[in-house]
Amino acid sequence: MAIDYKKELENAARNMIFVHDPDLLIKMMVRMMVNRAKITHASFFLHDKAKESYALTVSKGHLKSKIPLSLVRIDKDDVLIRFFKSGMSTSLFGREALVLNEAKAELKNPSLKKETKQKLIHVLYQMELLESVACIPSYFRDELLGILLLGRKQNGRKFLDEELDFFIALNSNVSMAVRNAQLFRQLGLELERKHQLFVRTTIALAAAIEAKDHYTHGHTTRVTSLSLEIARGIARKNKRDFDSGFMENLHIASLLHDIGKIGVPEYILNKRDALTVGERNRIKEHPMIGVNILKPIKELEGSMMGIKCHHERFDGKGYPDGLKGEQIPLIASIISVADSFDAMNSDRPYRPALPKEKAVNEIRSLSGRQFCPHIADTFLEICKEGRV
Amino acid sequence: MAIDYKKELENAARNMIFVHDPDLLIKMMVRMMVNRAKITHASFFLHDKAKESYALTVSKGHLKSKIPLSLVRIDKDDVLIRFFKSGMSTSLFGREALVLNEAKAELKNPSLKKETKQKLIHVLYQMELLESVACIPSYFRDELLGILLLGRKQNGRKFLDEELDFFIALNSNVSMAVRNAQLFRQLGLELERKHQLFVRTTIALAAAIEAKDHYTHGHTTRVTSLSLEIARGIARKNKRDFDSGFMENLHIASLLHDIGKIGVPEYILNKRDALTVGERNRIKEHPMIGVNILKPIKELEGSMMGIKCHHERFDGKGYPDGLKGEQIPLIASIISVADSFDAMNSDRPYRPALPKEKAVNEIRSLSGRQFCPHIADTFLEICKEGRV
Repeated sequence: MAIDYKKELENAARNMIFVHDPDLLIKMMVRMMVNRAKITHASFFLHDKAKESYALTVSKGHLKSKIPLSLVRIDKDDVLIRFFKSGMSTSLFGREALVLNEAKAELKNPSLKKETKQKLIHVLYQMELLESVACIPSYFRDELLGILLLGRKQNGRKFLDEELDFFIALNSNVSMAVRNAQLFRQLGLELERKHQLFVRTTIALAAAIEAKDHYTHGHTTRVTSLSLEIARGIARKNKRDFDSGFMENLHIASLLHDIGKIGVPEYILNKRDALTVGERNRIKEHPMIGVNILKPIKELEGSMMGIKCHHERFDGKGYPDGLKGEQIPLIASIISVADSFDAMNSDRPYRPALPKEKAVNEIRSLSGRQFCPHIADTFLEICKEGRV
Repeated sequence: MAIDYKKELENAARNMIFVHDPDLLIKMMVRMMVNRAKITHASFFLHDKAKESYALTVSKGHLKSKIPLSLVRIDKDDVLIRFFKSGMSTSLFGREALVLNEAKAELKNPSLKKETKQKLIHVLYQMELLESVACIPSYFRDELLGILLLGRKQNGRKFLDEELDFFIALNSNVSMAVRNAQLFRQLGLELERKHQLFVRTTIALAAAIEAKDHYTHGHTTRVTSLSLEIARGIARKNKRDFDSGFMENLHIASLLHDIGKIGVPEYILNKRDALTVGERNRIKEHPMIGVNILKPIKELEGSMMGIKCHHERFDGKGYPDGLKGEQIPLIASIISVADSFDAMNSDRPYRPALPKEKAVNEIRSLSGRQFCPHIADTFLEICKEGRV
């Protein structure tokens, strides 16, 4: 069989389904064709819906120096595109591919309609400009996904029918993989958009709740980034990343850690004088109020302990449950350090903000009493590294 | 060529990439094999990660009556599975497929190790139990994705080498498509999960904000479902669905329409006596407070008008901008009717709830003054149909 690389290419095509990068897929195909089938050059124009045209996605071989990538586009109304959209190639030549020599011979056919002949002349002129001897379209349903332009074989011979059939099949496989990759990318973008929607809305609502507590502007955002920074520090120390689930739970828990303050009366949150014991106890309810608000949301299960326990203390003197040492979930120990540092470093009704250095010293001196020593150490290290 | 259906199957395999249902993909392949290649039966066992086994996904042909679908599983430690996981088929027979006759002949090979022989005997016994003469595995990277079991050819002849090679290739294509479908499904589920996370968290926070306004328990949820019901009613009347973007924007806007109440002092929201003009004006600020809270979130752009304008009136006497008639965005006109109906139908500090029928009459009598007549009409129709 003339095509000894067929098996190899078939296998490659099959694995392409898992390459979710359209440009890379096309690059793989074009590179294989040029190198293994020994063609002088190959170029692929991919449909760009947004710009209503076909953009040169990749070009390989000697033409590359002549065609500057990303500059070349073929308009959706171009003769070449319209030729393939209309399916003229199949009706004239019995196959999807358009081959220069074959088409030139057809021009001499006396039964060819004048209009068709005129179109074909335009199309062949375009192909010659691009130094191509064959052009292979690929379709998805009714849509022309792209066209592949092929240069001459390096040995100067004509393309065999079986070579062309094989290129058509390979090109079709790649185009399907490209369409699949586009769908994946779209779904991925949508997922990212939804995630951002959730995160930003939560931040906005947390900020609105904070606005009632006049002294905590921006607190939620700062605690969230500091918590994530501490977690990354722990991962670096242990030389082992947390799984993405933990990081997401921590992210959400830090965003929502003070959400229960919505259930604390405004006059207590904004009181300038010292709080009574009763008022202080009302404030201490906020972690459990948060838990009660969010309990029905099963997706937040993994974050709940961070919200509930971020005021527990390592020595057991915290609230709501007076948990001690290792009983306190990691997610809460992290938020606790981040939350306390930011609180010290911000103005409060009853005192001005501590300067950063003094707040850091406070964390150090409370390590092992208020804070888990491992977490406090990590916090101190990332401070030293200038990450806070 | 013996395999005249090859082209057809190749095309089918290529299009499979867009079938995002693993079971359907396997069903298509098995049906094609049995019908076109005239095999007595074919069955596919697909890897089920959660249950650590291989589940019979589809069975076609005469064996179907004997193997009850979804009851049959092959354990991950079964001899047949371990045989293919170890790659023994390739090392013994030079190809992935295991063919009964070929393997039986191999048993007579004197150089075959005793241990290997023993394993092979077990495997062949399993195949005979399932009346299969060939078994084709499919892999993705190191993982055994599934195995395909084939019955005899109906004409009683042996499988040709090229038939087997072709089945191996087709099975491999289908398995890749199945893996792809699984990835799609996973991404889809994640998207749904994120959406639910957003919706549920927003509902929970809206409910917490409502809790400050003691008379509006469950208001947000009811307004949201009523708004969506009205939109569906409009779509039915116009015989044209809204695009999913509009429905999502309406959904989010109804969830968040009263979020600005977080900026209204508690004592005003909960006042039992008549409000002063100043207090009433504070309440009228809530749509703009909501807009200011959510303005930074570009994903909420399409919902913003619903939040801002849900207290505008058709006659121009509403707030914040005194918009009139068609100036009021559709999204806001819908929420306005839903919000007002639910408010009338709930207890308020200064009056008990109106019975449903009276509240409906109020909407009717305020149509063209407070409410856009088209929306009010649609609301009245869905009431008549018992959808409210």
